[in-house]
Amino acid sequence: MTDRREFRDLVSPDVAHEIIHDLPIASPPETVSLTSARGRVLAERIDADIDVPGFDRASMDGYAVRGRDTFGADEAAPVDLDRIGAVHAGATPDITVDSGEAAEISTGAVMPPGADAVVIVERTQEHDDGATVRVHDAVAPGDNVMIAGTDVAAGTRALGPGTRLTPREIGLLSALGVESVPVRGRPTVGIVSTGDELVRPGSTLDTTRGQIYDVNSYTIAAGVEEAGGEAKLYPHTGDDYDEMEQLLIEAADECDLVLSSGSTSASAVDVIYRVIESRGDLRLHGVAVKPGKPMLVGELDGSAYIGLPGYPVSALTIFRLFVAPAIRSVAGQPNPQTATLTGKMAVEERYAEGRLRLMPVGTVSNTVGETLVYPVDKGSGATTSLVEADGVVAVDPDTEYLATGESVTVELFSPDVRPPTLLGVGEDDPVFSRILDTLSNPRYLAIGSREGRRRLRNDVPDIAVVAGPSDRSLDTISLGSWKREWGLLVPTGNPANIDELSDIIEMNQQFVNRRTDSGLRRELDATIDSLADDRNVSREKLTQSIQGYERGAKGVESPARAIIQGNADTGLGLRITATERDLEFISLGTQQVSVEANPNRIEKSGVEELSDHLDSDTVNIDSYHGYEH
Amino acid sequence: MTDRREFRDLVSPDVAHEIIHDLPIASPPETVSLTSARGRVLAERIDADIDVPGFDRASMDGYAVRGRDTFGADEAAPVDLDRIGAVHAGATPDITVDSGEAAEISTGAVMPPGADAVVIVERTQEHDDGATVRVHDAVAPGDNVMIAGTDVAAGTRALGPGTRLTPREIGLLSALGVESVPVRGRPTVGIVSTGDELVRPGSTLDTTRGQIYDVNSYTIAAGVEEAGGEAKLYPHTGDDYDEMEQLLIEAADECDLVLSSGSTSASAVDVIYRVIESRGDLRLHGVAVKPGKPMLVGELDGSAYIGLPGYPVSALTIFRLFVAPAIRSVAGQPNPQTATLTGKMAVEERYAEGRLRLMPVGTVSNTVGETLVYPVDKGSGATTSLVEADGVVAVDPDTEYLATGESVTVELFSPDVRPPTLLGVGEDDPVFSRILDTLSNPRYLAIGSREGRRRLRNDVPDIAVVAGPSDRSLDTISLGSWKREWGLLVPTGNPANIDELSDIIEMNQQFVNRRTDSGLRRELDATIDSLADDRNVSREKLTQSIQGYERGAKGVESPARAIIQGNADTGLGLRITATERDLEFISLGTQQVSVEANPNRIEKSGVEELSDHLDSDTVNIDSYHGYEH
Repeated sequence: MTDRREFRDLVSPDVAHEIIHDLPIASPPETVSLTSARGRVLAERIDADIDVPGFDRASMDGYAVRGRDTFGADEAAPVDLDRIGAVHAGATPDITVDSGEAAEISTGAVMPPGADAVVIVERTQEHDDGATVRVHDAVAPGDNVMIAGTDVAAGTRALGPGTRLTPREIGLLSALGVESVPVRGRPTVGIVSTGDELVRPGSTLDTTRGQIYDVNSYTIAAGVEEAGGEAKLYPHTGDDYDEMEQLLIEAADECDLVLSSGSTSASAVDVIYRVIESRGDLRLHGVAVKPGKPMLVGELDGSAYIGLPGYPVSALTIFRLFVAPAIRSVAGQPNPQTATLTGKMAVEERYAEGRLRLMPVGTVSNTVGETLVYPVDKGSGATTSLVEADGVVAVDPDTEYLATGESVTVELFSPDVRPPTLLGVGEDDPVFSRILDTLSNPRYLAIGSREGRRRLRNDVPDIAVVAGPSDRSLDTISLGSWKREWGLLVPTGNPANIDELSDIIEMNQQFVNRRTDSGLRRELDATIDSLADDRNVSREKLTQSIQGYERGAKGVESPARAIIQGNADTGLGLRITATERDLEFISLGTQQVSVEANPNRIEKSGVEELSDHLDSDTVNIDSYHGYEH
Repeated sequence: MTDRREFRDLVSPDVAHEIIHDLPIASPPETVSLTSARGRVLAERIDADIDVPGFDRASMDGYAVRGRDTFGADEAAPVDLDRIGAVHAGATPDITVDSGEAAEISTGAVMPPGADAVVIVERTQEHDDGATVRVHDAVAPGDNVMIAGTDVAAGTRALGPGTRLTPREIGLLSALGVESVPVRGRPTVGIVSTGDELVRPGSTLDTTRGQIYDVNSYTIAAGVEEAGGEAKLYPHTGDDYDEMEQLLIEAADECDLVLSSGSTSASAVDVIYRVIESRGDLRLHGVAVKPGKPMLVGELDGSAYIGLPGYPVSALTIFRLFVAPAIRSVAGQPNPQTATLTGKMAVEERYAEGRLRLMPVGTVSNTVGETLVYPVDKGSGATTSLVEADGVVAVDPDTEYLATGESVTVELFSPDVRPPTLLGVGEDDPVFSRILDTLSNPRYLAIGSREGRRRLRNDVPDIAVVAGPSDRSLDTISLGSWKREWGLLVPTGNPANIDELSDIIEMNQQFVNRRTDSGLRRELDATIDSLADDRNVSREKLTQSIQGYERGAKGVESPARAIIQGNADTGLGLRITATERDLEFISLGTQQVSVEANPNRIEKSGVEELSDHLDSDTVNIDSYHGYEH
């Protein structure tokens, strides 16, 4: 590990933008049919090649006349004209309107020779079995007629180069008879994932070998398409030099831009570094931004190359900041209009990096329409941060402190991102999890009851779901509660004949506990405390005898899954889980689960929606096995 | 025309929304691959089926150790451990870490049995040729390790139904190994265009029969796709009952929703009316909204049917207001976030309709970041209004007057619509038309010099391009000017031997003039005035002898095109047009064209961009034939 590359020459973000801007990302224009042109960008100006309309066109249903024949006509003094026939839309007029004559005409029809105006049908009456038309209105030449070329004159500029084609422009192009249009090309972006441990979704994971599913390739591919490029995924590779070189050269030959992504391994980055240096031109290694230090930029066999960091949120952040604008620029796409929102810090934050920090944040709106902003994913690299963060706040290198309430701008991960309608935190509970399915756009962070209570006190979430014993009372408003039966899960048939809690202490069974942040674990701990009191021993004396007690699993279903997979004999869980997972259940008690609302958010529509749902008779919580409302 | 249907039972827009909401627009969910899931909406909740990570995972490069072996270690008092081997990402550990031992480990690798923490490589040194690792930092169990299931625990709710899939959610799904996802279906929307005069773009128009290209089918198809549906175009039909019935039934059988669109003809609407009444269920005919009176809503053979008005802007407006929300609702798509903007009326408007009016408006921003809003397309039905209007302002039935400066909300035609960077009005000039191609996102309305001057005085546009004599001076700032040579265009070889203006008076030639709003026409009128003075006759005496003098063509190229098509002997035009179109040219003078800026907009970036361009040496206006800078 002594030849590990150090990224000492960090360039500023502005310089990185310039270097990326100067990369040779080619993308020749192409011609597409009008029906597939939506969202594309014109490569050239389009001039009208025809007059629209191409003829003098009646713009109302009525009678084609000579305007001067109607001068002075009104309700009191109508004028009678000879009705000489009719002209319909789509037909060549076979009549000529002379002085004293009128021809019935439909909207869109060609004005017959001789006529210069249309009297609308509502201002006329037919007489003499249709031989005479009585006109109650005077019209001037040109009235209710659209003269040829009035809408668009042939030869005029219709749309300029760089115009993004929305339904409106597509309508104008169709009026001009344009069936195919020259548009800016979509750059092909190859995505090479690095890391021997990566597997494509759909394949089976071998977790004993440490395999994980590839995340960045899919996130970035979707980002590429969103920015107007075409993504092409390449097979993953490890840190073998020859393999990496072959793959990168293949991608560079086939694509306009190559992105590498996926691995956090320094050795893979190092191999890429050497490939670019030997087969291309490395122009940047390291940007003074957090995250993003290991970013590489260069040229490889005539194509552009950019290496992204490995953590999913970091990769998307760097992609969004540096790569997406380059793709949009090549594709001619404008920057998305709604890629930012302004909010207030919900908490305070301190910084010591001395370089630009792109802080991933979640957002939540309060009842007065403000957006509150809170940091997520402090370097954990978790995939869930992808959906828990809405975007990033760029914190200046000079900023050491952001106060609660300070105004910040959130650069959203994509223009479609919306703050959730409801931000909930707290206990992992299967009933609440199903209730979430009925709400519009909720976000729920299952961080456990204790942490849920803490955050609710800090006024960030809208609600907390709490269960189990607590030392502090909450100044909150209860929206509803239900009971859940908890106990021990065992395999079908209960092979070890576990009957009560003390059995797992004495029988030396492999037990799966929950983490101490869960209300369920706190309930178990309290029960063990009572048992210890009864036996007049310390709690530790008992828990040390329970194999696996100290290591808690995160999810409410985790112990059940460990038992099903044969990795455990028993675990802490709920009756509902046992029923759903076909396990047997030894009940140890019931526990109340409450939904507690932040008193400042009680009027927020997402909170009202949840409250209505909890109040509603249509919610039958009893239908969830083993629960009492 | 006596059986024409009268739409007397107009319903309110709210009732129309309800009726449309209750239409049976079916769209069953489907399963798509993760790579084509972007922008789709989940039909079901997705629970995690695996733990992420699936194993205890090193989250840094370093050494896997037992945390308790490092207690108390620091720079001053390092701890030496035996280096027993290495574990790489993607490999199964083949070693066990016992007390006093350390194993090299890469980020992402499986923690070897026995180890419970990782010391990062920067806090270690190898000694004794790699046999010993000196640890300078104490780590607690769990440090730099991501425990299995910490990121996502198997069994937990990952994404709820109704979630729109952006790159972030696609990343989470790939982490869970999900390769295909159940998404809401995209309703198939059939578009039937009515009108015998309609022709598809790409076909040749027969203008003698009054043919025009179909606009609404393409505008609405693009709108359908934008809203999340799939558009299917049907052949156009006229007002024959059997043909219409067959086409509508075919579309109803193949689609979830049928839209009719295209014709303004009352007889075609009437035929549709009768088909729906006899083969389906007509639920609404006429909404109290302008435009939109002829809107029909019903059911036809189990599918939904909606009829749109005929004018392009009206059709798009009604589509956007009533149909797009229904399509989005069926497709599960949220309403676009940026479909509105707030602006101030740039002019005053009066209303007398007594029903909701959807006023098409254009927008322009001023230098203090406000958006000014002005009405366009006052019922003209012009196609160009599609690109001249940015959206509509809904004016309440009770509103009789909107004052200049009054705040209004513009509902944009689509979320991608942006106010232009520069709003220009005035003369149709080929040089300026090319200059527009170099600007970012300009909008130019070629309404002629006189109307251009008037609007600039009213403070709506940013600039006006003016040419020819004017009665009033402008209080404006000139950004630049050039000269253009004007005169008579004649066919190659000048068959009628026209040498000067008086020839067209005496020779009885068919002449094509320009409209009186153009500066070019005003120049010709002034020249004829001089000639009349010379001859001591009235101007009318002379112009009555010029065949075609009174009827002016709109576009600067229109006279040239009429000559090329053999419809005229001579016409008013510019030398540049003659050169470009291979016509001969009889010069009658030169005329200055000036770009005049609104003094209140001089600092607007679009005006600065134009000004820089006009100042720039790189603009060689001389390269346009026949022009002097």
